[in-house]
Amino acid sequence: MRKVAVVGVGHSKFMFNSPKTGVEMLSEVAMDALNEANLTPKDVQAVFLGNVLGDFTEGQGMMQSFFANDIGCFNVPATRFEGACASGSMAVRDAFMWVASGFYDIVLVGGVEKATAMDTPLATRTFAMFGDSRYEYPAGFTFPGAFALLAHLYSSEYGIPLERLTEQMAAVSVQSHYYGMKNPNAQFHKEISVADVLKSPMVTTPIKLLDACPFTDGAAAIVIASEEVAKRLTDKPVYFAGVGQTSSGKLSSQSKHLPRIRARELAAEQAYKMAGLTPKDIDVCELHDCFSIAALIAAEGLGFFEPGTAGEAWERGETRLEGKIPINMSGGLKAKGHPIGATGVSQVTEITRQLRGELGEQGRQVDGAKVGLVDTLGGDGVIVNMILSTK
Amino acid sequence: MRKVAVVGVGHSKFMFNSPKTGVEMLSEVAMDALNEANLTPKDVQAVFLGNVLGDFTEGQGMMQSFFANDIGCFNVPATRFEGACASGSMAVRDAFMWVASGFYDIVLVGGVEKATAMDTPLATRTFAMFGDSRYEYPAGFTFPGAFALLAHLYSSEYGIPLERLTEQMAAVSVQSHYYGMKNPNAQFHKEISVADVLKSPMVTTPIKLLDACPFTDGAAAIVIASEEVAKRLTDKPVYFAGVGQTSSGKLSSQSKHLPRIRARELAAEQAYKMAGLTPKDIDVCELHDCFSIAALIAAEGLGFFEPGTAGEAWERGETRLEGKIPINMSGGLKAKGHPIGATGVSQVTEITRQLRGELGEQGRQVDGAKVGLVDTLGGDGVIVNMILSTK
Repeated sequence: MRKVAVVGVGHSKFMFNSPKTGVEMLSEVAMDALNEANLTPKDVQAVFLGNVLGDFTEGQGMMQSFFANDIGCFNVPATRFEGACASGSMAVRDAFMWVASGFYDIVLVGGVEKATAMDTPLATRTFAMFGDSRYEYPAGFTFPGAFALLAHLYSSEYGIPLERLTEQMAAVSVQSHYYGMKNPNAQFHKEISVADVLKSPMVTTPIKLLDACPFTDGAAAIVIASEEVAKRLTDKPVYFAGVGQTSSGKLSSQSKHLPRIRARELAAEQAYKMAGLTPKDIDVCELHDCFSIAALIAAEGLGFFEPGTAGEAWERGETRLEGKIPINMSGGLKAKGHPIGATGVSQVTEITRQLRGELGEQGRQVDGAKVGLVDTLGGDGVIVNMILSTK
Repeated sequence: MRKVAVVGVGHSKFMFNSPKTGVEMLSEVAMDALNEANLTPKDVQAVFLGNVLGDFTEGQGMMQSFFANDIGCFNVPATRFEGACASGSMAVRDAFMWVASGFYDIVLVGGVEKATAMDTPLATRTFAMFGDSRYEYPAGFTFPGAFALLAHLYSSEYGIPLERLTEQMAAVSVQSHYYGMKNPNAQFHKEISVADVLKSPMVTTPIKLLDACPFTDGAAAIVIASEEVAKRLTDKPVYFAGVGQTSSGKLSSQSKHLPRIRARELAAEQAYKMAGLTPKDIDVCELHDCFSIAALIAAEGLGFFEPGTAGEAWERGETRLEGKIPINMSGGLKAKGHPIGATGVSQVTEITRQLRGELGEQGRQVDGAKVGLVDTLGGDGVIVNMILSTK
């Protein structure tokens, strides 16, 4: 298979209540990504889209087709991917394969969501569709509840009293808001303290409001090309070194592993093996911190820390810009925002910019970053991991 | 790229009001497909799913993950594809690529829908989400309306008076019901006459109730393998010879071509070119007759008949079992039924059985069929074409 690179990226401001339609948001970021790669829509051979709720929030199914048409990608194959919050990454991984296989040379991947069109109770109920509709949602098992359960299991499994764990969890949110301040596209630009998190309203014990990422409207897009084409288009291609994807199904199917997410550990293993790399080789990481407890579990599952130790690592600053493994220098889902279908594409955009060394002016560039990891979690244990590299 | 074959198929009874959930329907047909290939779920390396309305009708998003888990395909990558009525074919084409590229050897593709959970007005409104939500649906442009418009354009473009065209259209439905009688999985087992069609209630001039396919619950699944693996598993592998996919976007973007669907002609061209074949080489075809006028336009777009002549061809019996190009020997969407996300996978199942020569007992086997074509249309001009071959 051929080497494949990201050659252009585009990223909208993440926000509440965007006045634009999903297609409009996508078209803007796609044109940015194409312009960056010195390409036009006529050069695009196929379009891939991550989108979850377009039908619910805008009455627009198969948005990929109208998006492609809107920017003048006429009569190309355009495909929508849905794997809940991992939809965007799923689209990227699939697009990678179509280029790696030699079938296409240049493809466009977008991700978009208008998740704030629903109020929080309706959104929470709607999101619960990405749990098991037979065994989980009918039992009242929504995602805040699922991650609260994981927090309790984490506390008991690793002998960390709940009061102590909530402090560790707070450190995740505090760091995310700190770097979110530096990201002009982030939804929140507000520094918070551990005390702020701990005194914020309880959502589901022990998860407080400031442990949870927001609902968000936003879009991101990337252009992917074969190595040969990439070298003609940019002097800073960022290559896909490894990809992995898994689906766990309902959470109870992993009960003997919880609070570890077995699906993630297997997806990460696929990506590391394909790249011939280990966690030590990763210079920068964007991972799926939909709740602060999710960030701890993710960082451990990806091999950066031993199980039960990630919270301390966050508190010690090991995940900061100058730390052992800088995590979520974008502000993460917590502060950058989480427009579901766009999140994976946004993460790839962030890592691409880090590996190109473009974020110095924003004060969040990891010095000399050459290898980055993307981690996205969708619903009940859909995981996509991707390793990007300057080589 | 490697040659890729279908090595097992499974197909549910298509019906109104299935008592089963989508996951249950999928699990049954997937186990049938795996059993036919002498495989178990442990052999499956990845799962691909076509599903459109699982969230609307069952409150189940990313059904692929729960489906994979349900049959014991643990922690494999499982991906949902949505391209309206072409979702199933989209999933098949994508799965083909993952095997052709050498990434996987054995993958499972399913398609499912419970489309009868909604009553007809709600379903029609819901389906309209697969038109353009900015310019079409708000103007009252639902799919019966879109195809009625195409019928009017067809009538004027080719000089066929509307009364005459409605007779030709009726011939399509009559033939579909004739062969549907012979398909035990078909939703309708009822012979109808041209007079029955013409006296059925008007839906949108000139489309009558019996010109329209029904809403349907159903599922289908196929197992796809690399040539080397396929030869070990079956003595009747059915190979993918060519694939094509396009998206037109809103119908008005093709206005200078209508009533021809330019997107289809381009997708078919891709598939024919890849296969090194022409329309004359096709022995049997399953095409997207969501409305009888759609069947005429499709048969012409695929190159079987000159524009404006397909209706007469149907009336002369050229599309029957013994005709020049047997079309929809399954009963088509009209009589077999149209469970949206399952339709493409069902079509591939049908063509596979034709090319294996298994339908003689049902009285609908095309003698010596060696090459078959699948045509699926989703929403506003998403087209997937696939050519299957015994060689």
